Amino acid sequence: MAGGGSDQRALQYEQTLMYGRYTQELGVYAKEEAARLRESGQRRSVSDRSRTLDLLEYDKGRCAKCRICTVRCQKFLISRVGEDWIFLILLGLLMALVSWVVDFCIAICLQAQKWMYGGLDSNVFLQYLAWVTYPVVLITFSAGFTQILAPQAVGSGIPEMKTILRGVVLKEYLTFKTFVAKVIGLTCALGSGMPLGKEGPFVHIASLCAALLSKFMSLFGGIYENESRNIEMLAAACAVGVGCCFAAPIGGVLFSIEVTSTFFAVRNYWRGFFAATFSAFIFRVLAVWNRDEETITALFKTRFRLDFPFDLQELPAFAVIGIASGFGGALFVYLNRLIVQFIRKQKAINKFLMKKRLLYPALVTLLVSTLTFPPGFGQFMAGKLTQKESLVTLLDNRTWAKQGIAEEFDYIGHSQAWKHPQVNVFVTLVLFIVMKFWMSALATTIPVPCGAFMPVFVIGAAFGRLVGESMAAWFPDGIHTDGTIYPIVPGGYAVVGAAALSGAVTHTVSTAVIVFELTGQISHILPVMIAVILANAVAQSLQPSLYDSIIRIKKLPYLPELGWGHHEKYNIRVEDIMVRDVRYITLNCCYRDLHNVLLTGHLKTLALVESAESMILLGSIERAQLQSLLSQQLGRPRRLEYIRERAAAEKKRLSVMSNPGSEDESHRASQEVRFQISTEESSFSPTRPVPQKPLKPALKRSSVVERPTEIPSHPNDNSGIALKNLFCASPDTEGLEDDGDLEDDMTIREIAEWEEKQLDEQVNFNNCKIDPAPFQLVERTSLHKTHTIFSLLGLDHAYVTSIGRLIGVVSLKELRKAIEGSVTVKGVKVRPPLASFRDSGTSSSENEATELHKLWDRHKTMSLPREHTPSESDEKSQ
Amino acid sequence: MAGGGSDQRALQYEQTLMYGRYTQELGVYAKEEAARLRESGQRRSVSDRSRTLDLLEYDKGRCAKCRICTVRCQKFLISRVGEDWIFLILLGLLMALVSWVVDFCIAICLQAQKWMYGGLDSNVFLQYLAWVTYPVVLITFSAGFTQILAPQAVGSGIPEMKTILRGVVLKEYLTFKTFVAKVIGLTCALGSGMPLGKEGPFVHIASLCAALLSKFMSLFGGIYENESRNIEMLAAACAVGVGCCFAAPIGGVLFSIEVTSTFFAVRNYWRGFFAATFSAFIFRVLAVWNRDEETITALFKTRFRLDFPFDLQELPAFAVIGIASGFGGALFVYLNRLIVQFIRKQKAINKFLMKKRLLYPALVTLLVSTLTFPPGFGQFMAGKLTQKESLVTLLDNRTWAKQGIAEEFDYIGHSQAWKHPQVNVFVTLVLFIVMKFWMSALATTIPVPCGAFMPVFVIGAAFGRLVGESMAAWFPDGIHTDGTIYPIVPGGYAVVGAAALSGAVTHTVSTAVIVFELTGQISHILPVMIAVILANAVAQSLQPSLYDSIIRIKKLPYLPELGWGHHEKYNIRVEDIMVRDVRYITLNCCYRDLHNVLLTGHLKTLALVESAESMILLGSIERAQLQSLLSQQLGRPRRLEYIRERAAAEKKRLSVMSNPGSEDESHRASQEVRFQISTEESSFSPTRPVPQKPLKPALKRSSVVERPTEIPSHPNDNSGIALKNLFCASPDTEGLEDDGDLEDDMTIREIAEWEEKQLDEQVNFNNCKIDPAPFQLVERTSLHKTHTIFSLLGLDHAYVTSIGRLIGVVSLKELRKAIEGSVTVKGVKVRPPLASFRDSGTSSSENEATELHKLWDRHKTMSLPREHTPSESDEKSQ
Repeated sequence: MAGGGSDQRALQYEQTLMYGRYTQELGVYAKEEAARLRESGQRRSVSDRSRTLDLLEYDKGRCAKCRICTVRCQKFLISRVGEDWIFLILLGLLMALVSWVVDFCIAICLQAQKWMYGGLDSNVFLQYLAWVTYPVVLITFSAGFTQILAPQAVGSGIPEMKTILRGVVLKEYLTFKTFVAKVIGLTCALGSGMPLGKEGPFVHIASLCAALLSKFMSLFGGIYENESRNIEMLAAACAVGVGCCFAAPIGGVLFSIEVTSTFFAVRNYWRGFFAATFSAFIFRVLAVWNRDEETITALFKTRFRLDFPFDLQELPAFAVIGIASGFGGALFVYLNRLIVQFIRKQKAINKFLMKKRLLYPALVTLLVSTLTFPPGFGQFMAGKLTQKESLVTLLDNRTWAKQGIAEEFDYIGHSQAWKHPQVNVFVTLVLFIVMKFWMSALATTIPVPCGAFMPVFVIGAAFGRLVGESMAAWFPDGIHTDGTIYPIVPGGYAVVGAAALSGAVTHTVSTAVIVFELTGQISHILPVMIAVILANAVAQSLQPSLYDSIIRIKKLPYLPELGWGHHEKYNIRVEDIMVRDVRYITLNCCYRDLHNVLLTGHLKTLALVESAESMILLGSIERAQLQSLLSQQLGRPRRLEYIRERAAAEKKRLSVMSNPGSEDESHRASQEVRFQISTEESSFSPTRPVPQKPLKPALKRSSVVERPTEIPSHPNDNSGIALKNLFCASPDTEGLEDDGDLEDDMTIREIAEWEEKQLDEQVNFNNCKIDPAPFQLVERTSLHKTHTIFSLLGLDHAYVTSIGRLIGVVSLKELRKAIEGSVTVKGVKVRPPLASFRDSGTSSSENEATELHKLWDRHKTMSLPREHTPSESDEKSQ
Repeated sequence: MAGGGSDQRALQYEQTLMYGRYTQELGVYAKEEAARLRESGQRRSVSDRSRTLDLLEYDKGRCAKCRICTVRCQKFLISRVGEDWIFLILLGLLMALVSWVVDFCIAICLQAQKWMYGGLDSNVFLQYLAWVTYPVVLITFSAGFTQILAPQAVGSGIPEMKTILRGVVLKEYLTFKTFVAKVIGLTCALGSGMPLGKEGPFVHIASLCAALLSKFMSLFGGIYENESRNIEMLAAACAVGVGCCFAAPIGGVLFSIEVTSTFFAVRNYWRGFFAATFSAFIFRVLAVWNRDEETITALFKTRFRLDFPFDLQELPAFAVIGIASGFGGALFVYLNRLIVQFIRKQKAINKFLMKKRLLYPALVTLLVSTLTFPPGFGQFMAGKLTQKESLVTLLDNRTWAKQGIAEEFDYIGHSQAWKHPQVNVFVTLVLFIVMKFWMSALATTIPVPCGAFMPVFVIGAAFGRLVGESMAAWFPDGIHTDGTIYPIVPGGYAVVGAAALSGAVTHTVSTAVIVFELTGQISHILPVMIAVILANAVAQSLQPSLYDSIIRIKKLPYLPELGWGHHEKYNIRVEDIMVRDVRYITLNCCYRDLHNVLLTGHLKTLALVESAESMILLGSIERAQLQSLLSQQLGRPRRLEYIRERAAAEKKRLSVMSNPGSEDESHRASQEVRFQISTEESSFSPTRPVPQKPLKPALKRSSVVERPTEIPSHPNDNSGIALKNLFCASPDTEGLEDDGDLEDDMTIREIAEWEEKQLDEQVNFNNCKIDPAPFQLVERTSLHKTHTIFSLLGLDHAYVTSIGRLIGVVSLKELRKAIEGSVTVKGVKVRPPLASFRDSGTSSSENEATELHKLWDRHKTMSLPREHTPSESDEKSQ
C-alpha cells in the first residue's frame, strides 16, 4: 500500500493490535513471574524476598508484627504502582537524574579539554593537537559506539518520536540498547564541544525511559499492557525530555506537543505538566544540593530591568529580528538537507565514507575544531567559549559597544572572549554567526546522537545581540523621549533572537515559553511573541521544519501537515485522489481468486466484499490471514488427509464394488493428467517412488515467511506448484508433525492436480480474522477532512464507499501525493485533474451529502474493478 | 436517540452539513450581494461605492488614474481578505478595542460610585444609599437588558463555547443581538463592583466577534463558507478572548484550549497565538497611547527580587497552598451548584423570582453591597477596594505584618484599606477570603453576563497572601540559613495562591502561565506549577470543573471527560453498552414499514440495511428525509395525479370497452370498501359531495412540522388517515399549488383506501439523501477508544457492525451513562453487567479483532430486531 520499502510501516489498528499482543504476552509473563516471586517469597525468608522486591519496601521488620505490616505495605504499594502518577513521578525522577548526570559528565569533558589546552600553552602546535584530537576522539568514539550498539540512536530522535506517536511502530527505536547507546553517545558528542544540542536526544531518551519503565512496571500491574496508555505515556515522556533538559516544564510540554503531535488530547495535558514539572524540579534541586546554586532559579538567568523593559518604538527592530530569523531558519533547514543530500549523492565520496564509517565524523570534527582553535581563527569568533558560556555572555545585561567602540565594555569573566584588540565587537559577532551557522548545519549531519536546537538557539542569540548592539550604538541614550533615560538592553534582543531563530527552525511558537523559562524573565513577552510568530510565518512558507525535513530524508512513514494557507484543500475531494481499481475478495470466492489477488498486489490488507456484483463492503482482511488460509488449503496436513480419505475410499471401493458412481468424480480427478511446468528444483525427482518428505524444499516453509516481498508478481505467470506453495508457508509447521501411519505417495503431477482442485473450492472464512469495520469515506469527503481523519485516527488507508458499495481506496500514499502536489515547497502546484474543473462550476457549493440517484447513475457507468460488468442482478441485489 | 429534550442536539456530521448549508446559502447570498454591489458601483460614482466598501479602501482617488489604481488596489485587497491572517488581525484588533472600551467604561462606572460615595461623606445613611443603590440599579439594568435582548448572553459562555466547539450547533448563541447584550450587560455588571469576572464572557464575545466577522467577510470571499474553517476560527477566537482580557497571549491560548477543547489540532495552534498576541499587543498599546502606562508591561506588574525568589525550604508551604486551594476550588464549584439547585428547587421562591425576574439579581446585589459597605462590615474586609485594586495590593512586594503586628506596614495607596486600627491584618484577610468566597459563588449565579475567574483569582491571591504573611511572621529573617538574609516575600505566595485556586476551579494548569503573564514575572515558576498541579489533582478528584458543572446544570449536550484514573474504561466494551434493538429500514421496504418505523421511534437518523435477513448496513437516513418521502407518496399532488390518471382511464374505458382486464385492478381497488375509524374532526363530513379543499385540516400542514415530538407513538394504533397524514407535512406546500383543471372529488373513504394502497408500494429511495458512511464500531471496541472516537469526530451516534451486519447502535446517551456510571463523583460505581464478568475470565486478554466464527455463532443465536428469525437465506446471502 505504501510502496516497496514499507516493511516497518503498517496500519495503526493492526499495529496497536500487534503491539497490544506483544505487551500482553509480556504482561502475562510478568504476572506469572510476579506470582512466582510472591510464592517463593512466602516459602523463603523475608530477607530473601526483600532482595527481589527491595524497590518497593521502605522498611524491613524483624519481629512478626513488622513482617505483617511490611507485607501489607508491600501489597498496598503494588496496588498503587498502577496509578499514572507513580509512573510519572518515577519517569520524572529518572530523567532528571539522567539529565543531571549527562550534564555533569559533559561539564567534566569540557573542563578536561580546557585543562589540556591551558596546560600546553607553551607550544601552539601541541595546543592545537590537543584542541583538535580531543573532540575527534570523542566524536569518533561516539559514532562508533552508536553504530555498533544501536544505529537507531543516531540523530535527534524527534522525527522518529513523531512517527511513533502517529501510531507507527518502530520497535527497535525503544529498546534498552538504544537507550544506552543514546545516553553514552550523546554525552561523548556534547563533551567534545562541537555545536550540538541535547534537546532532541532527550526527547528520545525520555521516551525510551518511559517505554522501558512501562515494561518494568508491567511486572506489578495490569494496565501497563494497554497500548493506548503507552502512547499517552510516550507523549508525556516527550514533555519530560524537553522539561528536564532546560528546566522548562511549560515550554517542554508545549514544545513537545507542537513537535510531535498532530492532534492532542487535552485529557493527557496534565500528565505532561505533572511529569515535566517534577522532572524540572528535581533537576534544579540536584544543582542546589550540589552547591552549584543557592536556590532554584532559571538555567540562564537574566537580570534585565523590570520597570521599563523596552520601548514601544523598539518593536520594529524586534520585528526585523523575527523576519530575518525566519529566513535564517529556512536557510538552516535547507543547508542541513543540502549537506545530507550532497553526501548521499556523491557516490565516490559516499563509498569511501561508507567503508570507513568513522571517517566522516572525524573529518567534520577536525574541520570545525580547527576553525575554532582560539589562537587561530577562533580568536575572531569567541572560539574558546563553550556553547553554554557563549549563551550566558550573549544574554548579558550590559551593553558591549557604545558609540560603536568597544572601549567602555566592562570585560569580566567570559565576556572577555568577545573582545579582540584589533577587531570590533560587531565583526566578532558577525563572524561568530556566519561560522557557527554552517558549522552547526554540518555538525548535525554527523551520525552521533545530537540535536540542533541549542546551536540554533545560540546563533539566534548572537544575531539578536548583534541587532541589539547596533541599536544601542545608534541610540546611545535610548529611544524613549520624555523623562527618564532608558538605555537599550542588547540582552533583550538576544533573547528575542534566540527564540525567533529556534522557532523558525523547528516551526514552533513555544520556543518563546522556553526562552522565558530559561532566562527566568517574561518581561519581553510581546517582542518575543511578535518575533517568533513572524519568524514562523516566514520559515513555514519557505521550508518544512527541521524535523519534517529529516522525516522526508529518512523516508519515515509520516503524513505531511496541511500548510498555512490550505484553501484549495477544501476543494479537492476524495474522488479526485482515490484509487478506483481496488483489490478485493468476495465472500463466495474460491481459493484460486485468493491466490490471484495475492499474486497481483502488495497491499497489507484486502477488502472483503459481499459479491462482485453488489460490491458491498463487509470488512478487510490482512494479507497474512489470507496467506495462512491458502496454506491451510494447500498444505501438507490437508493433502495427507486427502490421501487418507482416498485410501479409505479405495478400500471401500474394493470391498463394495457395487455403486462406483458416487466415487466417480474424485476418481476421475485423480486419474486426469495435466502437464504443468515447474521451475522448482524439487521437480527434478518427480518419479521417485516413496520419498519420506520429498516436498519439503518445494514448500519452503521457513524462508518465505521472512521475505514476502520477494514473491514475483506477474499476474499471469505459470510457475504452478512452486508459486502456489509459496503461500503455503505457515510458521506453526503442523505439516512436520509425525504422521507415521501415512505415506505421502503422491507424485508431483498428482499434487499439482490436487492443488488445482483445491484451488477451485470455495474459501471458508471461518478461521480468518476479519476487521469488520474498516474506516470508510465518501466520494465527496474533502481532502481537508480526510487529512483530519487520517491524522486523528492514525489510519493507513480508508475505503471509499457509496451506500455500502466499495468504489475506491485511499491510502497514506495517495493522500501524501495530493497534499504535496498542491503544497509543494518548490512552488510547482500540481492539482488533481478534477479539482480545477470543479472550481469554476457550481457543484462545489452543493451539499456534501451524496445523493443516491447520482451515485446510482455513476455506478452503472463506472468501470468496476476487473471482470465485473454491471448486470441486472446489480439492480436486484439492492 | 438522546432522550426527550434533545432538540438542540444532533449528529455533528448532519449539523455541519446543516451548518454548511446554512452558511453556504449565506455565502451564495453574499456573493450575489457582492456582485450586485460591484455592478452598481461601476454604474454609480466612486464615492458612492466607497461608502459601501470604505473599510477596504485606504485612499480615494479623484483623477482617472487614481480611480484605476483604487479599483486595482481594491481587487487586490478583496483577494487578500480570504487569507487567514487578515481575519485574525481584524479579530484581534476588534477584540482589543472592545476589551479596552469595556475596561474604560467599567473604570468610569467604578469611579462614579467612588465619587458618589466620597461626596456624601457627611451622612452615613446617604452614603449607604448611594453605595447600595448604584450597583443594584446597574445589575438590574444588566439583567433586564440581557433578558429582553438575548437571554443567551447570560453567564460566562465558556460552557456553551465548549459545546459549540464539540460540534453542536447552538445558533442563537452566535448572533449580533447576543453580542450587543453581552457587551453592554457585562460592562454594567462589572461596573457595579460586584465580585464578577470578565474572562468567561470575553471568550464568548470573541467567538461572537469571529462568527459575525466571518459572516461579514464572506461578502468578499468564498472560504468563509466552510464549516471546518469556522470551527477553527472559533477556537482561535476563544484564545483571543482570554488573551485580550488579561494581555496574556500564551496563557490565553492554553487556557482556551484546556477549557474548550477535548482534542486539539496542533495545526490551529498558530492561529490562536497569532490572534491573541496581536490582540494583547493592541490592548496594551492602547493603554500606552492613553498615557496610562509609559510602555508595554504586564497588567498587574510585580517587582519581586530576581536573585533569590524563594528558598527550597519554602516549597512545603507552597504545596500546602496548592492542596488547600484544591479543596477550596472544589468547594466553590459545589457551593455554586448548590445555590443554583436550591433556587431551582424551592418552588415558592422560584415562582416568585421567576415572575419578577429582576428581583433575584437586585436582592443578591443588595446583600453583597450591604456587607461590603466600607463604614460598616466592609471596613474589616477591605470593602472599599475594587477587585483590581485588591489584586494589586495583594500582589504587593512588601510584607504587611512583621512579628504578627501590623505596625511596620508602610501603608501607602490602596494598601491602607487592609489596615484596621483595632483588627489584625490576618483577621482582615481571613474575613476577606471567607466573605468573598460565598459572595462570589452567589454573585456568579445572577443572570447577567459574568465570569467567575477573576473573583476566584482574587480570593486565591488573598489566601496566598495570608499564608505568606504567616510565614513571614513565623520566619522574620527568612529560612535560608547560610550567608545573606533573604526575607520571605508574601507577594510570591499570593501569586501562587491565585494560580492554584483559579486552576482548581477551572481544572486547568494554564492559570500558571496566565499568572506569569499578568504579573510579568516568571521567577516563581516552580512553586506555582507545583501548587497548580496539586490543586488540580485534589479538585479534579472531588468535583467537576466549574464549566462542566454549568454544562450539567444547563443540560447542554456534551460528552463528559474520562476521569483521571480511568483504568476500568479499558475493560468495558461497546457490546456492553450498545442498544441492540436498532430501528432500521430496508432497501426493499414498503412505505408502510417506513410509516411504522417513524411512528415507533424518535431517532434523528435511521439505519438503512440491505434486507432484514442480511442486515448489511448501507447507510443512514435522516428522519426528515423519510418524512418527506412519505409525504411525497401520500401527498396531495400525487393524489391529484392519481385522480387524473383514473379519470383518463375511465375515459379510455368508456371509449374502448373492449379489454377491461388491464384496468381491472385499479378499478377494483377504487371500488373496494374498507371501514376505517377516523378520529379526526374532518371525518364528520365524509359524504359531502365535492368539497373544494375538504382535507386541508386533516393534513395539518403547518402545525405538525413544528412539533414532531407530539406524534403519539403507539406501535399499533389505528387512527388511520390522520396519522399517516401527519407525515405528509412538507414545508414547501406543493399541494397548495393551483390545479385548477382538476377537482379533488375523492371521499375520505376513497382517500383512506388510496393511502393504504400507496403504503404498500415499495419505497423509492432515489430522491432521498443517504449518508453512505455512518461511523461504525465493532463489538469489542473498548469504551476508552469509543470515547476517543466520539470526542475526536464529534459523533452523536455510531452503528455497531459485525462484518457488515448491523447489530447495535451506541449514542452519546449510552456513552454518557457508561462513563458516568463508573466515574460518578458520588463514589457509587455502577459498572455495566458484562464488564465485571469479563474481568475474572481470561477473555479480556484476548485480541480485539473479532474472529469470524464467533460472530457467526453469535449471529445465529442473537435475537435480531423484531420479526426476523435467522433463516437459511441468512446463510446464503453471505
